Amino acid sequence: MHACMLAALRLNGFPCKRPENVTADDFFSSALALPGNTGNPVGSAVTAANVEKLPGLNTLGVSMSRVDYAPWGVNPPHTHPRATEIIYVLEGSLDVGFVTTAGKLFARTVCKGELFVFPRGLVHYQKNNGGAPAMAISAFNSQLPGTQSLAVAMFGASPPVPTDVLARALQIDGGLVETIKSKFPPK
Amino acid sequence: MHACMLAALRLNGFPCKRPENVTADDFFSSALALPGNTGNPVGSAVTAANVEKLPGLNTLGVSMSRVDYAPWGVNPPHTHPRATEIIYVLEGSLDVGFVTTAGKLFARTVCKGELFVFPRGLVHYQKNNGGAPAMAISAFNSQLPGTQSLAVAMFGASPPVPTDVLARALQIDGGLVETIKSKFPPK
Amino acid sequence: MHACMLAALRLNGFPCKRPENVTADDFFSSALALPGNTGNPVGSAVTAANVEKLPGLNTLGVSMSRVDYAPWGVNPPHTHPRATEIIYVLEGSLDVGFVTTAGKLFARTVCKGELFVFPRGLVHYQKNNGGAPAMAISAFNSQLPGTQSLAVAMFGASPPVPTDVLARALQIDGGLVETIKSKFPPK
Amino acid sequence: MHACMLAALRLNGFPCKRPENVTADDFFSSALALPGNTGNPVGSAVTAANVEKLPGLNTLGVSMSRVDYAPWGVNPPHTHPRATEIIYVLEGSLDVGFVTTAGKLFARTVCKGELFVFPRGLVHYQKNNGGAPAMAISAFNSQLPGTQSLAVAMFGASPPVPTDVLARALQIDGGLVETIKSKFPPK
Amino acid sequence: MHACMLAALRLNGFPCKRPENVTADDFFSSALALPGNTGNPVGSAVTAANVEKLPGLNTLGVSMSRVDYAPWGVNPPHTHPRATEIIYVLEGSLDVGFVTTAGKLFARTVCKGELFVFPRGLVHYQKNNGGAPAMAISAFNSQLPGTQSLAVAMFGASPPVPTDVLARALQIDGGLVETIKSKFPPK
Amino acid sequence: MHACMLAALRLNGFPCKRPENVTADDFFSSALALPGNTGNPVGSAVTAANVEKLPGLNTLGVSMSRVDYAPWGVNPPHTHPRATEIIYVLEGSLDVGFVTTAGKLFARTVCKGELFVFPRGLVHYQKNNGGAPAMAISAFNSQLPGTQSLAVAMFGASPPVPTDVLARALQIDGGLVETIKSKFPPK
Repeated sequence: MHACMLAALRLNGFPCKRPENVTADDFFSSALALPGNTGNPVGSAVTAANVEKLPGLNTLGVSMSRVDYAPWGVNPPHTHPRATEIIYVLEGSLDVGFVTTAGKLFARTVCKGELFVFPRGLVHYQKNNGGAPAMAISAFNSQLPGTQSLAVAMFGASPPVPTDVLARALQIDGGLVETIKSKFPPK
Repeated sequence: MHACMLAALRLNGFPCKRPENVTADDFFSSALALPGNTGNPVGSAVTAANVEKLPGLNTLGVSMSRVDYAPWGVNPPHTHPRATEIIYVLEGSLDVGFVTTAGKLFARTVCKGELFVFPRGLVHYQKNNGGAPAMAISAFNSQLPGTQSLAVAMFGASPPVPTDVLARALQIDGGLVETIKSKFPPK
Repeated sequence: MHACMLAALRLNGFPCKRPENVTADDFFSSALALPGNTGNPVGSAVTAANVEKLPGLNTLGVSMSRVDYAPWGVNPPHTHPRATEIIYVLEGSLDVGFVTTAGKLFARTVCKGELFVFPRGLVHYQKNNGGAPAMAISAFNSQLPGTQSLAVAMFGASPPVPTDVLARALQIDGGLVETIKSKFPPK
Repeated sequence: MHACMLAALRLNGFPCKRPENVTADDFFSSALALPGNTGNPVGSAVTAANVEKLPGLNTLGVSMSRVDYAPWGVNPPHTHPRATEIIYVLEGSLDVGFVTTAGKLFARTVCKGELFVFPRGLVHYQKNNGGAPAMAISAFNSQLPGTQSLAVAMFGASPPVPTDVLARALQIDGGLVETIKSKFPPK
Repeated sequence: MHACMLAALRLNGFPCKRPENVTADDFFSSALALPGNTGNPVGSAVTAANVEKLPGLNTLGVSMSRVDYAPWGVNPPHTHPRATEIIYVLEGSLDVGFVTTAGKLFARTVCKGELFVFPRGLVHYQKNNGGAPAMAISAFNSQLPGTQSLAVAMFGASPPVPTDVLARALQIDGGLVETIKSKFPPK
Repeated sequence: MHACMLAALRLNGFPCKRPENVTADDFFSSALALPGNTGNPVGSAVTAANVEKLPGLNTLGVSMSRVDYAPWGVNPPHTHPRATEIIYVLEGSLDVGFVTTAGKLFARTVCKGELFVFPRGLVHYQKNNGGAPAMAISAFNSQLPGTQSLAVAMFGASPPVPTDVLARALQIDGGLVETIKSKFPPK
């Protein structure tokens, strides 16, 4: 019996059931059975089955996501602060890549039935390289890997990252930073 | 750049490339694109993409397997000594279960698009509950989770586990142990 | 002061005392001083001093068990999902073994004063190879290593593992599976 | 004696000395004694004392950096894939911030003698908020935390991240992406 | 968002805020801005910014201390049971050293701007080697490294370590042990 | 098969065998079968079965020691920098204790068949409280826990810890420090 089953209240901040109340359903999810809505500016949707959605994952160190891509849709550059990701393509084919801390891009096309690995914490992306929808399943070695979109972190944070910091970082003028920020209204 | 890229020779016993020789292909595998051969007594086949097959996984803490099931085929009771498993059904539906250290079985049917979690180290199985082939993808939070079939560990080890130990453990007579052993000739 | 002493309520699901209430007795156990009752079908008894019995072990990553063996008694094949075990023989001599994930058995006789190691998660057993009682102490690198008997996991789970799964796994007929199941009535 | 001292050749990919050759100098560095050159577009310089520079750190799980800031200089948004950072200001005062995976910015001014924490893997930055040089020391809970500049990862990778991926991610046109890329020529 | 932010009550025994109540101040400390009082028998003072003082450190695995030294002051031999320490000298110069488990002393002088590493758990000390005050910042790869002074552990514990144990350990007579004990009245 | 078996040369600095050369003897030791020689000033002897003596322990995270005590013999105050210890008394009875980082002593008598836990990194000791030899087995959650005697670290290091540092730490005069140092000639 794993540790969480023994915890009366909460463990790692997540609710725990008493052992006598745990059922098989605590280890099951149908959340990834249906496609996400890709009708958005980037043309992709991520549906997560992590410990926030599936409490039985608590202390177990794994989680999964489904990624749907509209034709030519993009899962834009992002990081997972706490996990390596392994992605398996179920439909279509993807152009994928990650950037090392030395600034080197490792990229290639991954077709249906093939897989690719994005090492822990590194910036990576996927792009549907065809005119039909694509779909992939991603697994993580964390029950809550976290996702940080680079565009949102830089241009859509709330409160916003100061414009002069971004202008200096990207070596562009502040007006242009403001223009990009306008595309990412804080929630 | 992850640690292995920096290692001249080997890390954790696996070969490491010099950073300048690493390519995107080191993080890619097509090993799970084709079905395994399920023409065997249990009616299932596991194809692994772990660090032994995909060296880029070294130090990254994840791996993946594809499981194919003949109609009514069984992936028999086994453990992964070093990992939790999360399984996602791609075709058909499976009857799955795991047994806790308290001897409690958590079992249910998992259909196409659904997922189930097998906690680290616990005995578990899957069975195709239909007359058509089934298929699933499993992810692990270890680059080399290991798999130990209970039937092989007890009845097919080389050299064999002593018959009297098994007879005592299962509370059956030695002749019957020998009969089962004959089904699992040591490799 | 270790982390648990600082926790007001519970840590990892186990009760924690306030620091001012901790005493030396929280780090002490006499539970392994007396032999367990080996009058059972397998002829062995395991007495555990883990975090469930000795709360001071919480967060400390160790535990201990005493194993008593009747003459020719067997500690039947089992795994510890969360720990490596190191066993030290105090009385008598044991035939011990573990099976690797490659199906290889490593076995030998271990006499009084000698020790043997069972790597994390692998199937292992001990057998008293003499006509007098034997006794050993086992230590684990987990405060709650867990124990999963292969016989119980397969034949005594509650609810039971489906007979056809076991028949297929062991390549025996269902009637024989039922016979073995009858020896392990679910608790 | 720590593990590395016992390794004849390399451990984790880094060179190890035989114990008899280790000296106090292996645990010492003067690399952070002098300011880095802040005469660059962002107006800051990071000088690292990690395991690549200080081999005695191998297996010890810590490292340190010195950051120098020109007046109004910026250490632009970046992540450390493998570590939490704790920064202590030695000269001047800094406006610092990090963005959570929920897109929330935590920011404030940190003056001489004060410290701030950047949680593992999250995007963060610092800016000298005065007209005189500033300086800080950062410590990490990794011997090789890695640093990934967001600007470089997106606009300066080699080979480059495809322009259409970035245009889609930032919701700007490709020409603008190319303009920013021109500021980050691949090395 | 790190794990603690998600915890309603406590995590690892420390209080956690609800995410909506977390602010930048939870990741900030000014505790190390002012010198500690070195007017004591050893002539040094350690001011800690660990998880007990800075709750935002919970789950993040780092902490920091400031050490002030009177002229010729000594931070006497001690261990940190749960962390490696990296020390950076801000004012003056220190004679520092640690002793390995093989009894070997690694020692040298560390001047302003230089750093030194004390491996996890090993006995170490620093001494101001000049007639002016000195100051250093230490970072740890633990949110609560713990500090155990050897003098206090041996001669100032409450209740006291038995005199005969210490006499035997140090190979001195009991009267002398009592004399030293009198310098360390239990608190 | 555990990681070391897969390593061609060395792992963590210790030699690894190729899998085909590993035997059951790699997991076995008789080193603790015979008493150590307690004819020394402290009246105790520790015999270790760690990874330096038993290579099969590599990567497995456990080790064991035997401690023999002459009548009234003492295992003097020491720490294990990398492990918690659990001690089981086989012969005689011991007065044991450990000191927390808060300077509190937890002590009691532990008789034959009883056990006690010394938390990771804390100063602890044992004393045979009787006129006959005593014996205990200790297990550690590290394959190489390390042992640091406080007396040796302070008074017997090579080169020696400066006398003025010790005099200040213990608040005794330098002549007395020198006297104690003379009892611990560097090896």
